[in-house]
Amino acid sequence: MPRIIVDVMPKPEILDPQGKAIVGALPRLGFDAFSSVRQGKRFELTVDGEVTEAILAQAKEAAATLLSNPVIEDVVNVEVQD
Amino acid sequence: MPRIIVDVMPKPEILDPQGKAIVGALPRLGFDAFSSVRQGKRFELTVDGEVTEAILAQAKEAAATLLSNPVIEDVVNVEVQD
Repeated sequence: MPRIIVDVMPKPEILDPQGKAIVGALPRLGFDAFSSVRQGKRFELTVDGEVTEAILAQAKEAAATLLSNPVIEDVVNVEVQD
Repeated sequence: MPRIIVDVMPKPEILDPQGKAIVGALPRLGFDAFSSVRQGKRFELTVDGEVTEAILAQAKEAAATLLSNPVIEDVVNVEVQD
């Protein structure tokens, strides 16, 4: 069944304490290649049947209203995955 | 600067209470097209300079060890985004 993937990230100007914790932990584990880390959310919405334009529009509206907090987060991607 | 995107999702057999809460809330808000929802995590790792094979390998190892809990989560995607 097709799925719609929604990616939500904290806005660039918002402090991301989880990302900061990860970027601090990485070099202690020997991973020294990364200068910053941001942590966001990924949603998989399963659709029964075909993904129509109307369903994709629903997903985009749900992403902007229920799945993200527009004060502190950006919806960075909404895409269909078969 | 290039970024490496890491997507982590709960394993299919693991209960996902956040996803369940969302799939319950969607129809109350008029979004009736979705039969299930899973919530996972998305990480953006910023790399200074070029993403070499070695750096991508580091990202994959970090994804499997620090960014995900292999008991309950799968790393579903590691990709370079320019």
